[in-house]
Amino acid sequence: MGRILIAYATDKGATRRLADAIAEGARGAPGAAVTLDDVDALSAADVLQADGVLFGGPVHMGGMHWRAKRFIDRECGPLWKESDLSDRYCGVFATGGGYGGAGGGCDLAMLAMLSNFAQLGMVIVPLPRATPGFADGGCHWGPYGRTNAPDGAPIPLSDGALACARAYGRRFAELVAARRLRRAG
Amino acid sequence: MGRILIAYATDKGATRRLADAIAEGARGAPGAAVTLDDVDALSAADVLQADGVLFGGPVHMGGMHWRAKRFIDRECGPLWKESDLSDRYCGVFATGGGYGGAGGGCDLAMLAMLSNFAQLGMVIVPLPRATPGFADGGCHWGPYGRTNAPDGAPIPLSDGALACARAYGRRFAELVAARRLRRAG
Amino acid sequence: MGRILIAYATDKGATRRLADAIAEGARGAPGAAVTLDDVDALSAADVLQADGVLFGGPVHMGGMHWRAKRFIDRECGPLWKESDLSDRYCGVFATGGGYGGAGGGCDLAMLAMLSNFAQLGMVIVPLPRATPGFADGGCHWGPYGRTNAPDGAPIPLSDGALACARAYGRRFAELVAARRLRRAG
Amino acid sequence: MGRILIAYATDKGATRRLADAIAEGARGAPGAAVTLDDVDALSAADVLQADGVLFGGPVHMGGMHWRAKRFIDRECGPLWKESDLSDRYCGVFATGGGYGGAGGGCDLAMLAMLSNFAQLGMVIVPLPRATPGFADGGCHWGPYGRTNAPDGAPIPLSDGALACARAYGRRFAELVAARRLRRAG
Repeated sequence: MGRILIAYATDKGATRRLADAIAEGARGAPGAAVTLDDVDALSAADVLQADGVLFGGPVHMGGMHWRAKRFIDRECGPLWKESDLSDRYCGVFATGGGYGGAGGGCDLAMLAMLSNFAQLGMVIVPLPRATPGFADGGCHWGPYGRTNAPDGAPIPLSDGALACARAYGRRFAELVAARRLRRAG
Repeated sequence: MGRILIAYATDKGATRRLADAIAEGARGAPGAAVTLDDVDALSAADVLQADGVLFGGPVHMGGMHWRAKRFIDRECGPLWKESDLSDRYCGVFATGGGYGGAGGGCDLAMLAMLSNFAQLGMVIVPLPRATPGFADGGCHWGPYGRTNAPDGAPIPLSDGALACARAYGRRFAELVAARRLRRAG
Repeated sequence: MGRILIAYATDKGATRRLADAIAEGARGAPGAAVTLDDVDALSAADVLQADGVLFGGPVHMGGMHWRAKRFIDRECGPLWKESDLSDRYCGVFATGGGYGGAGGGCDLAMLAMLSNFAQLGMVIVPLPRATPGFADGGCHWGPYGRTNAPDGAPIPLSDGALACARAYGRRFAELVAARRLRRAG
Repeated sequence: MGRILIAYATDKGATRRLADAIAEGARGAPGAAVTLDDVDALSAADVLQADGVLFGGPVHMGGMHWRAKRFIDRECGPLWKESDLSDRYCGVFATGGGYGGAGGGCDLAMLAMLSNFAQLGMVIVPLPRATPGFADGGCHWGPYGRTNAPDGAPIPLSDGALACARAYGRRFAELVAARRLRRAG
């Protein structure tokens, strides 16, 4: 069994939908126990109980959502001093307008989130190019869903992006389950 | 004349002291009008009124302070849609424990702050190596003050770091003043 | 007058075409003297003679072209020790497949190039959102031309991306010219 | 058993010494088979044969060594198109002057190297804060050895940095070995 925490910040719901797809994929893995919630409803205790954490939010001004950062500073910061989470997995996901046709800063926004988990020593699971839906909803750092066309017009998350998110969630959960077996063995 | 806004987030006051040193340097430039305040006391209007913005905070978990990010999302985000600030200057500064002897993530924390101002189109002023005090309080992205030794023990900002901050503030204000002259000319 | 160096690495010519568009825009600014060449044909002396440097290449594996990095290490590295270029301007541009719909790492590739010029202390000119063609060929760090569709199929640089590059080159040259006037004044 | 490739670029030998320490640690793990060599002596075939890859070099102008990037472009680039390495581990290490007391750009230099392996889909192993020697030779992204004091004077790699590198190599090798067992099981 592997306990997976999926934590997100969301504005209008798009990141929540991407998180749902990741959770759906993760739940398809044998033995996965998935917790999915907004960062504002979670605490350090939820991170401590998880074998793997997936963390995401919209890209704002080339960086992560401020509520995501508040969770990191308040809940994860103390863990850095007190806990060793280095035998756990993490990953990130994001949504964004991608205004400008170049991702709109999703690269650095995802790395801003990954920095926190690298500080906690957690093993990072990126998104392989061979993942179904990658061309439509992926970045090497994790699943990415476009909520706006390059010209700024709002669009729904594509089927490809959602398929990519599901496949990523499934694979992440399988890695976490294998880790549990290893420790139990 | 050049109007300079120095905005900071601070926990125990170290970033405030670094911001003070930058302000002291900026005020030494002919014709500079400096506003210095915590991000929580500022708004988009303050950004709009400035010819140059300097923005800083402590490094938390390899990224910027969450209150700094809240200011960016709430106050700067709307400016991205509505305003053209591309004829203005910006810069960043940070404090940090630097636990580990390698900056503790100050590189990416500073870039996370710069991303916002690059999104606003503002011209970025880095910190030249020849700046007095650089060896003690500098990173190429901006002034950096250590608040902890590599082993984590708290230390005050060094004289070198404060000298570096003053020199940077002065130079930034001179660039901003020159821009004002150019526009007036 | 302002002397502008546009240096690029290119594989099949797409970055060269983007550089050409930037040069065309820059030459349209009054008094601009533009040098355009492959990094392999340039040296530190060319950097030293320029009032502003624009530097670009294709995105390879989420980073800059290795020939661009060789130029930085061999030619710019010694300048870091010996010269003060802090009163000059710089900017970056890139081309890329953008495989995955999220920029394919152009964010970090552009920052990798900017790091060099920040180390040299040069003032950084990003790409404002209001630039014509931005939605088709822009990232906040600089002009970006897609050479592949999200699914990987090769495509030519779009008219929008080329328009964006021209507008950026023009503006960059105007900033450089204003600096020359300021120093002369 | 786990096959580990440690690939480095080095100028005067400091990165080679750091790589040696990592290799020494890795060889201490049961069943580890370690290959250690300069990037110029390696090829894509060496990457393909490894269960885990550790990659490092000196920080130059805020980024990786150009020979490291040449290896990535020439040898790893084709793997991106042709191979699925997503069930393997990777990590990075670096040396640097750290001129300025803030890491001198090691953050972004390490991320520039990690970008390549994230593009290949490989699982990333960061450096936990609890690693012995971390305060003297660590960054959350990986082992980091200072080759210069903050004022630029050359210094040898510290005992702490070497201890940190050994501990990281050991842990990395244990993770790789566990993966082999999992696949075999």
